[in-house]
Amino acid sequence: MFKRNHSKGIASIVVIGTVLISLLAAQPNLGIAKSAKEEVYQGKTPKYVFMFIGDGMSYAQVSSAEMYLGEKSMPGKLTPEQLSFTKYPVHGALMTQDSSSFIPDSASTATSLASGQKTLSGVINMDETKTKAYTPITEDLKAKGYRIGIVTSVPITHATPAAYYAKVANRNDAYEIGKQLAASGFDYFGGGDFDQKIGPKGTDQPIYEIVEQAGYTIANTKEEIQAINNRSGKVVAIDPDNYETALDYEIDREAEELSLADYVKKGIEVLDNKKGFFMMVEGGKIDWANHANDATASIYDTIAFDDSVKVAFDFYNAHPKDTLILVTADHECGGMTIGYSLTGYSTHFEKLQPVTMSYQEFDKISKLYKETNPANPKLEDLSDKIKAAYGLDTATLTSYESSLLSNAFAKFMSTDAKPSNDQESVLYGTYNPLSVTLSHIINNKAGLSFSSYSHTGVPVPVYAVGTGSEMFGGYYDNTKIYYKLSSITKSARAK
Amino acid sequence: MFKRNHSKGIASIVVIGTVLISLLAAQPNLGIAKSAKEEVYQGKTPKYVFMFIGDGMSYAQVSSAEMYLGEKSMPGKLTPEQLSFTKYPVHGALMTQDSSSFIPDSASTATSLASGQKTLSGVINMDETKTKAYTPITEDLKAKGYRIGIVTSVPITHATPAAYYAKVANRNDAYEIGKQLAASGFDYFGGGDFDQKIGPKGTDQPIYEIVEQAGYTIANTKEEIQAINNRSGKVVAIDPDNYETALDYEIDREAEELSLADYVKKGIEVLDNKKGFFMMVEGGKIDWANHANDATASIYDTIAFDDSVKVAFDFYNAHPKDTLILVTADHECGGMTIGYSLTGYSTHFEKLQPVTMSYQEFDKISKLYKETNPANPKLEDLSDKIKAAYGLDTATLTSYESSLLSNAFAKFMSTDAKPSNDQESVLYGTYNPLSVTLSHIINNKAGLSFSSYSHTGVPVPVYAVGTGSEMFGGYYDNTKIYYKLSSITKSARAK
Repeated sequence: MFKRNHSKGIASIVVIGTVLISLLAAQPNLGIAKSAKEEVYQGKTPKYVFMFIGDGMSYAQVSSAEMYLGEKSMPGKLTPEQLSFTKYPVHGALMTQDSSSFIPDSASTATSLASGQKTLSGVINMDETKTKAYTPITEDLKAKGYRIGIVTSVPITHATPAAYYAKVANRNDAYEIGKQLAASGFDYFGGGDFDQKIGPKGTDQPIYEIVEQAGYTIANTKEEIQAINNRSGKVVAIDPDNYETALDYEIDREAEELSLADYVKKGIEVLDNKKGFFMMVEGGKIDWANHANDATASIYDTIAFDDSVKVAFDFYNAHPKDTLILVTADHECGGMTIGYSLTGYSTHFEKLQPVTMSYQEFDKISKLYKETNPANPKLEDLSDKIKAAYGLDTATLTSYESSLLSNAFAKFMSTDAKPSNDQESVLYGTYNPLSVTLSHIINNKAGLSFSSYSHTGVPVPVYAVGTGSEMFGGYYDNTKIYYKLSSITKSARAK
Repeated sequence: MFKRNHSKGIASIVVIGTVLISLLAAQPNLGIAKSAKEEVYQGKTPKYVFMFIGDGMSYAQVSSAEMYLGEKSMPGKLTPEQLSFTKYPVHGALMTQDSSSFIPDSASTATSLASGQKTLSGVINMDETKTKAYTPITEDLKAKGYRIGIVTSVPITHATPAAYYAKVANRNDAYEIGKQLAASGFDYFGGGDFDQKIGPKGTDQPIYEIVEQAGYTIANTKEEIQAINNRSGKVVAIDPDNYETALDYEIDREAEELSLADYVKKGIEVLDNKKGFFMMVEGGKIDWANHANDATASIYDTIAFDDSVKVAFDFYNAHPKDTLILVTADHECGGMTIGYSLTGYSTHFEKLQPVTMSYQEFDKISKLYKETNPANPKLEDLSDKIKAAYGLDTATLTSYESSLLSNAFAKFMSTDAKPSNDQESVLYGTYNPLSVTLSHIINNKAGLSFSSYSHTGVPVPVYAVGTGSEMFGGYYDNTKIYYKLSSITKSARAK
């Protein structure tokens, strides 16, 4: 697809004036906050801007997906099958620390990307004192006439999407975030549901009512979502198959369920207009999969994220001179690496191919077993289920793997499955000890490993194509993404 | 330093014609070997080319060094102090898989960088059948009149430097590599010693004799090395303080010992001539530190590597229109991440500041203790030494850390300290159980962790500045480095 449009893409990228400017812009980042603002762009302004954020997606998440695909399509050839966006001509990398830590959260990092400011973990578009609000680029673009779309595979009031339309001191205040969504006037919201549908007080108005009173159509059946079009006005499309307000993990998604790519397609249909649009699309479940150390779920969701990027690339091909696509991430998650002490120099991605479900689906199976209160619980009772879910034959595990698994099973079946000491925290985090251990065993057999159940401070990649894309090369602070985008769209204003 | 020469640097970077070409070159890498060769450059040819390879250095190694420096100079400010090369205007990333594995070794990856070809792990500049030899770019450049220099902090016959002058089926054949060094005719070799000074057979000629008969001066005292100059002819400068043929870890280096930067300075002095030069500089001990999971040693050696890059940057400032500096890596090592399950969202780089020595120096201390054959060995006997080496008070460790450390001590004091099961392999690899566990404890307290004692398949960064640097943006296969360099130096030839 990309190859076919090779020369066309180039034509839109090379504007000699902007190349010079972009190289200037990519000059030394001295680590001083003010320098982030010095972004100058004199090229053409793109009418259509796509901002893709793979939540928790750094190099290991991207590469493991590419190696998995390569191993699947060309077994033994050791050739990664590249995702569409890693073939983009411009590559950069972002430093992601926030005002609380070198290891940031999604609220602060999305604030940096959306508004160009550092803030504390947990804070969305407000300063460190939680008193001064910041203006996300979406407000500036809306004022310029762009339509605005926000798409995510996790709740629509989650930190990353919220940073593109809300300002709150605490990311957990999802009812307030929902109210701000209603007040935003933005054009299209698609994907996960509202985290808090009723307010903290009994007298609070339900969030759906507030959203509808603000003039939004809420579409939450597949038929309603499919019927939305360019003349539907402001819409919120809520995934009818959402599980705990998020889209299913891609590995668990049934064929008839809507995908992240479907929400991007629908978004283009709703937003397309001659003044242009800005669409932020978050692959939020990449992060959740990595928190849980589920490498296979991470790979599937990274591929689903790429599928949604491909929808934007088709649009770019139709409007190569007017479109900018940015693909980046907010932070790494899980400390994923493509290596493991016991597998040394080898990987075995083929071992992930029999995996049929996420840890979350296996949680349901194991909990059901526990609820039967078996008199004499035995891991063997679950052997068939483990085989079906992970492709693992518990009879052929090494003695080390067996001992990890029996300990996890015993812990899981105990009255309190929460970690009771540091060793258990290292082994299980706050996850179901049985399913997280099965994830670890299958990851490690494949030659993959994790070091944390939290985010990490490892830098994240940026990939860009289209008008203005040349601004995004280099290694720089994540706040610069905002300043570059502002400069390219000429929407910068005093902060 | 960089800031002062800002505009001068730009002047040398922006050659409008080459920018266009470079964007073309950065277009989709389709993962097909042949596409790697399609590199076109029509800009000015740099006379001076520096190729820096941080062995085992990927994003986590670079960022951890920057965060460590930031925490040291601005405690609590959470601002990374950037290394000089991460401020370069051009950024790219490399896929590093070889013909044996997605997790490559230094022989195959250095072959890819030096000669543009994939091969098996362990093979240097030969194909997968070990019969056909490849020509490294250094031979082509030498033929064009460039002087050639090879600098490394590990043995001069180690895989990475060897790929720039030798062709062998087995990287361990260091005697043959040494003979090929002598036959290369290249101008300057500096840093570590020869791995094998005598041949496998008793009748083999000692390697120093072979090298001297080929017309080289061997300088292996500080005075001799300092006396080398532009009129010394072909020289091999061997570090007089080398430990097991490599430079000391930077953290262990005494102030009067020569540094990697010193060997680069001397190299410039020896190589400088009006026809130009190519110098490959390897920060080889970054890799060794990461194999041993010693984060502090990795940070110190990454900073020492940056110091050596700064020497080249000073030269670039004096010859901005004629110099190209590339800084990259061959592969990641250790699966380092900036995060750990028990420290979650926090890091504590200040905990690394009291560390005074590498695992290797502590190995010596602990072995000395073991050799005293204490009747009743106790960890407490080493408490003072542990405090002096790591800043760790063994009395205040958590119970989890204490139990890890006592187990490691018991294993270390046992007759066979080699791992006897998978759990021990995970905990200690093939390292001294005591010192590697101390490294793990201090790493984890700082919020850093490792997942392997081998390399990993995580991509590595590329940073570039100077004439031709615009060719190195994007995300691409490591073989492309050769083709880009060949195109820029117009030294390409049929392979």
